[in-house]
Amino acid sequence: MKVKNMSIELIPTYWCNLLADFPDLYQSTLIDPSIRLSLPAATKKVFPKLPLNLLKQSHNVTDANIFIPEPIRKMYATYRPTPFRRAMLLEKALETRTHIYYKFEGSNISGSHKLNSAIAQAYYYKLAGVKHLITGTGAGQWGTAIAYACQLFGLECTVFMVDVSLRQKPQRKKMMELFGATVHESPSTITELGLKTLSEKNSQSSLAIATGEAIELTNKIDGAQFAVGSGENNVLLHQTIIGNEVLNQMESLNIFPDKVYACVGAGSNFGGIAFPLLRHAQLHNKHCEFIAVEPVACPKLTKGIYAIDLNDFSGASPYSKMYTLGSQFIVPAIHAGGLRYHGTSAFLSALYANHYIKACAISQEKSLAAGLLFAKHEGILPAPESAYAIAAAIDDIEKNSLRDGNIIINISGHGLFDIAAYEQYQENKLPPDAIANEVLRHNINILKNNSFNHIT
Amino acid sequence: MKVKNMSIELIPTYWCNLLADFPDLYQSTLIDPSIRLSLPAATKKVFPKLPLNLLKQSHNVTDANIFIPEPIRKMYATYRPTPFRRAMLLEKALETRTHIYYKFEGSNISGSHKLNSAIAQAYYYKLAGVKHLITGTGAGQWGTAIAYACQLFGLECTVFMVDVSLRQKPQRKKMMELFGATVHESPSTITELGLKTLSEKNSQSSLAIATGEAIELTNKIDGAQFAVGSGENNVLLHQTIIGNEVLNQMESLNIFPDKVYACVGAGSNFGGIAFPLLRHAQLHNKHCEFIAVEPVACPKLTKGIYAIDLNDFSGASPYSKMYTLGSQFIVPAIHAGGLRYHGTSAFLSALYANHYIKACAISQEKSLAAGLLFAKHEGILPAPESAYAIAAAIDDIEKNSLRDGNIIINISGHGLFDIAAYEQYQENKLPPDAIANEVLRHNINILKNNSFNHIT
Repeated sequence: MKVKNMSIELIPTYWCNLLADFPDLYQSTLIDPSIRLSLPAATKKVFPKLPLNLLKQSHNVTDANIFIPEPIRKMYATYRPTPFRRAMLLEKALETRTHIYYKFEGSNISGSHKLNSAIAQAYYYKLAGVKHLITGTGAGQWGTAIAYACQLFGLECTVFMVDVSLRQKPQRKKMMELFGATVHESPSTITELGLKTLSEKNSQSSLAIATGEAIELTNKIDGAQFAVGSGENNVLLHQTIIGNEVLNQMESLNIFPDKVYACVGAGSNFGGIAFPLLRHAQLHNKHCEFIAVEPVACPKLTKGIYAIDLNDFSGASPYSKMYTLGSQFIVPAIHAGGLRYHGTSAFLSALYANHYIKACAISQEKSLAAGLLFAKHEGILPAPESAYAIAAAIDDIEKNSLRDGNIIINISGHGLFDIAAYEQYQENKLPPDAIANEVLRHNINILKNNSFNHIT
Repeated sequence: MKVKNMSIELIPTYWCNLLADFPDLYQSTLIDPSIRLSLPAATKKVFPKLPLNLLKQSHNVTDANIFIPEPIRKMYATYRPTPFRRAMLLEKALETRTHIYYKFEGSNISGSHKLNSAIAQAYYYKLAGVKHLITGTGAGQWGTAIAYACQLFGLECTVFMVDVSLRQKPQRKKMMELFGATVHESPSTITELGLKTLSEKNSQSSLAIATGEAIELTNKIDGAQFAVGSGENNVLLHQTIIGNEVLNQMESLNIFPDKVYACVGAGSNFGGIAFPLLRHAQLHNKHCEFIAVEPVACPKLTKGIYAIDLNDFSGASPYSKMYTLGSQFIVPAIHAGGLRYHGTSAFLSALYANHYIKACAISQEKSLAAGLLFAKHEGILPAPESAYAIAAAIDDIEKNSLRDGNIIINISGHGLFDIAAYEQYQENKLPPDAIANEVLRHNINILKNNSFNHIT
């Protein structure tokens, strides 16, 4: 019995650049210059620009595959290939003939797929002469990933972490500090946005404010750059290591999935697994559905509109054309902090608008039930975010719509710091999914009435 | 590029039963019947007996390999094979030519190697008609493992968890409860031992008391059994899945280690990796050193004596012939709760007494420094226990005693719930290793003066 499981040789040599497969879709994500000029905040904003190497990756429609530099592959080799397994015990529990495969991205030190892009970004920023990366983080996975990646490449790192999350998961802050990062509780007293927020009555903290603080600080420090964990085309590109690996892992089993499930925040773990498999399906005329799973509490794909909108609440980030619930929509508090984002990656939105991918919304209760069921049978406690993808798959199986097929669930991270969420579910103490339809309608109406959105 | 990493085919079919290789050593671990009768508490104790299937495994000197039943291999396949990797980034940081390999046992839901035996035990107890497993746990890894394994096989589970650890790591208790276990804070009010302990002035909680409570409760419940997480021959046998897997993983690389490092509490993760490799070295006339790494705070192998002693403080468990610091020795509070045990597995002790394995003691500060260094370069935060093994290896490398060799470090678990320990190290707030030599001498003298110990 020969086992090969430790070598840089097992790491794919390329990322899958799906922009090259769909240049027209890519084109459709760009905001028309005439519209861009009419955007309200266009002149006021100073948004830190990507260095050329990352900027190129975000707009490359020529190269179908992007070479992964050796230093990045070496770092990948410390935790990849990640497990790809058949969930036979879960199948048995569900009494299904469907073969359930899963990919698990939570076995690295950051606890989620975020490290795949953090390593790549730290490498490219370092090459571009950047000395210091600054970012905002919600639940802390992205913060942990970038803190870890920065110490690998000798970059300084500053993270603004949403105060509520920081108190819920102090371990994440401490871990970032173990890797030498400076972590500020957001709202902080070191930025104008932080001070302004703190001075307001009933002020609410949010990832948007943490991000705004990070951008403000970045603009004040020479050699600093602002790093984003999802949404950008280059981030989705780095995450395609997941899908490329799955293609290799499936090859030896001689299978191809009928459906692929992944949760969607801004879209990086979904794009990471879906893009390489979507290309493969297109090239080989295979049928496969890609299901983007979102929370009922944040249904941008299933209930949002395709419009030009701000990427964050405070308006510190640029506009994108995307599926959105409105940048002013306050997403209800759910345990899956990584899915509490009003919009979706522009390119992913274009794919969805053109029916290359599907979407569904799942309740928090259903997702945590599925996550716990998965843990009991397969021995992995999924992150609350990833549990949404599992729930959607189980839902389909229970509706008996899959039968003898193969499915893949992408499990983006572990839930070891989210045990309280599962406990709340088990004790029947979860609040119902509070999606206020009037608020949603109101926010979408604002977008519809924007002169730059030509929506009928 | 073909990748095989998901199949029961990759799980070894046998455990390595080293008793069959060393029948005389096994024989030497048995306490002479005449001495046994003279043991002080021999008549008072009611220690729950192992069912026949597990008892046989603990005393089998005939079968070199023990077949792993299919249901156990299926469960193993949900998280095995575990990673076996070369720590190239750590090598670079240490500027060494030594090739450092590591085996990582922390990627399962229990967070440590303990699950390897918990699954096997739950299976065998179930077969033997047991309905309910009861145990004591310190830091919680064993408790989590047995709770998880019990729900897999439909057994009831009760865990007594040391109160101090429970407050330090409430997540572990909650996780056990997610898997349906009943968890009592020890000392509890539901056993006589617990009540007695609580009524004493300045009473101290300990694993010994938690274990005593578990044994007491076991004796009161029909169909219940007491499960142990380490020390027993059958537990060490189950853990040899680790070393058998390493043999497979090394074969494809065509290497054999010059040294193997693992930490030692009672000895199950050490035995798990060492036994199959020791057999291989003996059979093929290869030279390999096996280093059992213990804390300076609990130096049973390097400073204890080889004697007949109780397995726990309260005297609820049987006597063993082993390396020990004395069952009344209170191990100083160190973060590596799993290594705070005064004795060592009887069979491991016999191997040590006969120079088949070596030992060294490492300070807590050195171990956490090594654990953090490993995390920074290799992306795995080791359990404080496992960090001792890493520190011993780095120590040898820095003394330049290894040069071009290959070494393997067994990393028994992850440290995601032990971030506070690393933080304390980083902030220079660790207390010094407080080993009171007079206390140690006093305890060892008690053993020496015992009439049943013929020590000169």
